[in-house]
Amino acid sequence: MFKSNKPLENIKVLDFTIALAGVYVSWQLADMGAEVWKVEKYGVGDQSRAWAPFINGMSTLYTSYNKNKKSIELDLRQEKGKEIIYNMVKKADVVLENFKSGSIDKLGLGYDKLKEINPKIVFVSLSGFGKNGPLAKLPCYDAIAAARGGFAASNGDKKGSPMKAANANCDTLTGTHALNAVLMGLYNVRKTGKGSYIDIAMSDTVMVSVAETIIDYFTGNYQGTRFGNNDRFIAPYGIYETRDGWVVIIADTEDKWKAFCKALNKKEWITNPKYINNKSRIENVEELMREIEKVTINYKRKELEKILLEVGVPTSEVLPFIEAYTSEHANKTNCTSMVNQDKVGLMRFYNNPLQFDNKICEIKTGAPLLGANSREILKKIGYTDEKIDELYEKKVLGSSLI
Amino acid sequence: MFKSNKPLENIKVLDFTIALAGVYVSWQLADMGAEVWKVEKYGVGDQSRAWAPFINGMSTLYTSYNKNKKSIELDLRQEKGKEIIYNMVKKADVVLENFKSGSIDKLGLGYDKLKEINPKIVFVSLSGFGKNGPLAKLPCYDAIAAARGGFAASNGDKKGSPMKAANANCDTLTGTHALNAVLMGLYNVRKTGKGSYIDIAMSDTVMVSVAETIIDYFTGNYQGTRFGNNDRFIAPYGIYETRDGWVVIIADTEDKWKAFCKALNKKEWITNPKYINNKSRIENVEELMREIEKVTINYKRKELEKILLEVGVPTSEVLPFIEAYTSEHANKTNCTSMVNQDKVGLMRFYNNPLQFDNKICEIKTGAPLLGANSREILKKIGYTDEKIDELYEKKVLGSSLI
Repeated sequence: MFKSNKPLENIKVLDFTIALAGVYVSWQLADMGAEVWKVEKYGVGDQSRAWAPFINGMSTLYTSYNKNKKSIELDLRQEKGKEIIYNMVKKADVVLENFKSGSIDKLGLGYDKLKEINPKIVFVSLSGFGKNGPLAKLPCYDAIAAARGGFAASNGDKKGSPMKAANANCDTLTGTHALNAVLMGLYNVRKTGKGSYIDIAMSDTVMVSVAETIIDYFTGNYQGTRFGNNDRFIAPYGIYETRDGWVVIIADTEDKWKAFCKALNKKEWITNPKYINNKSRIENVEELMREIEKVTINYKRKELEKILLEVGVPTSEVLPFIEAYTSEHANKTNCTSMVNQDKVGLMRFYNNPLQFDNKICEIKTGAPLLGANSREILKKIGYTDEKIDELYEKKVLGSSLI
Repeated sequence: MFKSNKPLENIKVLDFTIALAGVYVSWQLADMGAEVWKVEKYGVGDQSRAWAPFINGMSTLYTSYNKNKKSIELDLRQEKGKEIIYNMVKKADVVLENFKSGSIDKLGLGYDKLKEINPKIVFVSLSGFGKNGPLAKLPCYDAIAAARGGFAASNGDKKGSPMKAANANCDTLTGTHALNAVLMGLYNVRKTGKGSYIDIAMSDTVMVSVAETIIDYFTGNYQGTRFGNNDRFIAPYGIYETRDGWVVIIADTEDKWKAFCKALNKKEWITNPKYINNKSRIENVEELMREIEKVTINYKRKELEKILLEVGVPTSEVLPFIEAYTSEHANKTNCTSMVNQDKVGLMRFYNNPLQFDNKICEIKTGAPLLGANSREILKKIGYTDEKIDELYEKKVLGSSLI
């Protein structure tokens, strides 16, 4: 068993990340107990500090993604700023960065330099399109990764346009993969004593997330059509309208299909040649969807969910936001916690989805104000108070506390 | 540096997973060098063996998700079948399962039992809604997790219905998180010598993937409206139609907005009060989108991408499937490999998105036929050929080779 629910408690992370995919990795590492040293630009800090929504002038987008971390405000253009990084690397286990491709090398802080200082370092670079290849220098945002990796092409209504998700799901997905990279690197250090360099591209992780469609494209007959709220292989498998919202209904076997028809008082569908088996239902899926909605529209969503679950047909209401995060389920499974946040006061954070030994990963602190931990971190790596005062004076170190 | 690009080469995984979220975890582990012992139901095997698309009667959905693994075909209802599992657990590092909540305990193969046999085991359970809470017993499929976790509610057109993704993105996301759990568990064993139990729920990982909207719901003014191809906070940030497809355009600063207007010969937008700053553009985002599309529809997507990239506006064509996976970028960055697959011959697999020390994770083998490795695995854990022959005779072990 874990000594605590913080498996990474002894790990130190030097975190240069400035865009969500990377910030997400250090968020996860911090949740798991790692000490994250968030290196922020002197006087400015993380770009998301300026992004809505705000409470008391504090970005809750920033706070949510940066809880449990520590902030050091640093001028990397000064030699003494770089020197601090070199000294931090000596004590760190992991370096994370998602600057524009190649920028960290130009700063003199690339893997080749840092591994000389600490050969055990696990160095993870996140980028849009990898370090090589024809797109390496192009800008990448979540929606661009979605567009280049096939998510946008496959998401959306059959007759509509390709669609991005409402959230930066390509960023968070890339972050989750990058976390795997960090953990494999750390495992490898324990095993072999050696560090490593890991390169991860958003476009590649998006491709893996749409693997099913790629498989079907390369080995089946998928030509890239969007299927909206139907499935390509199973019918019914989709989202259907009810009187007060929507439900997901999945009848992925003939038994479930029959139970579904009976429960809706539509026994005639069972013998209708157009719906006689899954193949026929797929061929007539658009018509079938319209027919199903003529029935489902007469029910309330919770009522229909109950009726269909009782006869063994996997069904779920589509929860509106307000219900998803305030439901009995969300409460009972500890999806969120209230934590004290500087400048904000008590605010709601969501908990990490991993539960170790049946305990949630406790949130120790909110997100740091800019430069809040500069002195603390430098003392940990051996700087004296006098030396630190000097660095503040020379504006190598900052404590803007915004 | 890694000795090879297979950081998990010494790890053995006892893999009971039967649904994609779990199968995805062992796929990733196998890619990274772990030896995955896929325990399959006697005479039947992995359910996806029966799922389209097929080549030579072999499901390429199955092969793609099960490459690099080994298959043991086993009757778990027989005592001798369970005994085999107990002996496998002695040699294994990881156990993965995603049976219906509680089923593995009833089979006598739950964590409490297996940790007695091997206290170092890292045991990961994946489920729809966790082991506890009011939804624990409900069936969960990808679209149901999307419906309960807020992805469906936020995805889709403003005036349309909530929308699931075209792919099982909630399954793969949960798998990626579960892989993190496995790796933290393995790291912890190296550190403390002790195993652990980790529970992971699809609905929870989906919630984290829509974190931005949750933050905005709890701390901002988001009421759960869908925003389709626009962004809630930045305009323009979206997908726009062109003469031959779509482009993503992102003008997230005033400088980029001005450069965008000039490049499209729409300088009058810069001074139009409705678009004068980001706040105004967000207020008029639907009209702005229509106005932009009146212009973009006159360009070809690659042409528009080039024009806007040249003036520093992040832009990308939305790649149709056929182009995404056959592009120069996909080729140069080794997104896929051709590998020999039993029954199929040479087929295309996609590579793991993680590159260690600049090397792709080589795909060693295709996916196993049902029971292909039963004898091999049993010999590894100490069974003699005579004993194994006896188990085949008693139909505890199978080699259906389908």
